[in-house]
Amino acid sequence: MKILVTGSAGMIGRKLVERLALDKTLGGKVIQSLTLVDVVESPIPTGSPKDTRPIIADFSEKGVAATLILERPDVIFHLAAIVSGDAEANFEKGYKINFNGSWALFEAIRQEREKDSQNGSQTSSYKPRFVFASSLAVIGPPFPDPVPDSLATTPTTSYGTQKAMTELLLADYSRKGYLDGVGVRLPTICIRPGKPNKAASSFFSGILREPLAGQEAPLPVSDDVRHWFASPRAAVGFFITAATIDTSPLGPRRSMTMPGVSATVGEEIDALRKAAGDKAVALIKRVEDPFIAKIVQGWAGRYDPQLASSMGFAAEKNFDQIIKVYQEDEMGQ
Amino acid sequence: MKILVTGSAGMIGRKLVERLALDKTLGGKVIQSLTLVDVVESPIPTGSPKDTRPIIADFSEKGVAATLILERPDVIFHLAAIVSGDAEANFEKGYKINFNGSWALFEAIRQEREKDSQNGSQTSSYKPRFVFASSLAVIGPPFPDPVPDSLATTPTTSYGTQKAMTELLLADYSRKGYLDGVGVRLPTICIRPGKPNKAASSFFSGILREPLAGQEAPLPVSDDVRHWFASPRAAVGFFITAATIDTSPLGPRRSMTMPGVSATVGEEIDALRKAAGDKAVALIKRVEDPFIAKIVQGWAGRYDPQLASSMGFAAEKNFDQIIKVYQEDEMGQ
Repeated sequence: MKILVTGSAGMIGRKLVERLALDKTLGGKVIQSLTLVDVVESPIPTGSPKDTRPIIADFSEKGVAATLILERPDVIFHLAAIVSGDAEANFEKGYKINFNGSWALFEAIRQEREKDSQNGSQTSSYKPRFVFASSLAVIGPPFPDPVPDSLATTPTTSYGTQKAMTELLLADYSRKGYLDGVGVRLPTICIRPGKPNKAASSFFSGILREPLAGQEAPLPVSDDVRHWFASPRAAVGFFITAATIDTSPLGPRRSMTMPGVSATVGEEIDALRKAAGDKAVALIKRVEDPFIAKIVQGWAGRYDPQLASSMGFAAEKNFDQIIKVYQEDEMGQ
Repeated sequence: MKILVTGSAGMIGRKLVERLALDKTLGGKVIQSLTLVDVVESPIPTGSPKDTRPIIADFSEKGVAATLILERPDVIFHLAAIVSGDAEANFEKGYKINFNGSWALFEAIRQEREKDSQNGSQTSSYKPRFVFASSLAVIGPPFPDPVPDSLATTPTTSYGTQKAMTELLLADYSRKGYLDGVGVRLPTICIRPGKPNKAASSFFSGILREPLAGQEAPLPVSDDVRHWFASPRAAVGFFITAATIDTSPLGPRRSMTMPGVSATVGEEIDALRKAAGDKAVALIKRVEDPFIAKIVQGWAGRYDPQLASSMGFAAEKNFDQIIKVYQEDEMGQ
């Protein structure tokens, strides 16, 4: 089986490739090749198949998608995107990469199939599984609590709009039989390894990650703010599940809200206390930030991801587990 | 005020232009010019402003949108599209016209605004009202009864996908302040004047229109099939309302399901009996058509269009009124 990963140098992309290299199979089939595409060099983890090839390219540039699809990968993990803040600040760039770039991949697949019919075949044998990294940013307020799978996508950012439009295309290309698509709406990933970043959601990881390392962390919102979380390990699991499920029960809903842990900031802090004591909790410094508080108010705190759960997608059950994953995967405990 | 209408030679487009020519004003402002774009010649109704110009052009062809927007129309009624069956049979053509063509209009507006900032203005004074003819095809089963405004758009046709994607763009361009968009999801228009067409919904009009003219009409489904209707006159009213409402209460939901009459085929027939007697009803010939029956099963029969109703959109209350509109507007009664 041949696998293509876009965004393979990103945090989740790297972890997904590590998992594939470790598993050596996907859905019971041996992984023969891994093609790893990103705008920077993708690391090749130990255990990768011999035919593993990092490509430095912007998948949204003209002709790149067709080149990537020419090898007819059996499974495509499409994780590459520019982030929400970038897409909001750079309107054209966001649509070019997050929407038109994704569409170019879908079109490259359809064109690749067309070659077979031009060669006289009635139908093409090429119909890859296409796993698309979507986002809960496709949904916007007002939110019922919990948010059902059937809620309209009324995004409040260009990023969410681009993801929602790509979800629609993914469903239509799947319905037409051009590819076999599964969209994965990721919860906020927590605990993100590394340094704080400029995302408004950065503090959700920071108030655990920094104290676990003995460092101070700012908390810009109140303890009762509720949000929806899953670990990086769970996110990788979502992608593996999306690549291997039987898609026939999905119907027109090809993109699914993923399971997660609904927790308040206060519950995060309680879990930190259990894991690392009062000394760690004391490192959280309350520094109100009305700008961040307002952004966070636009996010839902609880979802009812019935479809994904029924399809076998699973996340952690509570924040104790989320912290444990971080300690195991990032702190070597 | 300058007005641009795309699809101005279509059934609803013609009626909309007739209404504008009759009213001579829109939202209290005198209509100075009407630019009427369609792939065939648009009729110019009596009473049109002196500066009325029919243009034969495909708005989705390169450069056409920019030319149309160059005049900076204050209100754009974007009705042009290829129909569902055509978009389903011709995948590329459907996306090119129904989606990329609409996007080209949005982009032409954004680029027109850009000219002002290149000329040194802080902000552009150009921000047209953009009224988009969407469709209930953006929604797909399973349907709650009634279908709420908040239901996810899971279209089951390429046409519905293209309309749903355009709705998302319309909302994002509105949110960014590039235009002031209102999307109008039309019910099935009944009674359509003219001849039966190949649309699966054609019979809903045919079983009234043909008997009212003393002719036989086939009925391919059972009497208990429920559907959602508005007259052509109501549809024109939706577009006028969409052009003149205060959009500030809309929030991120820029596209709205329109009010309509929820009625079964049996209720249509009862209304025909009241209007034209048993002799007319006897002209309906039951000819089962499982193909059409199956398509119709994929449509919802009842909506709860709270947002549109609260914004002042209104349709007929029952089928007696729908028949009366046809008799007045098409039969000169």
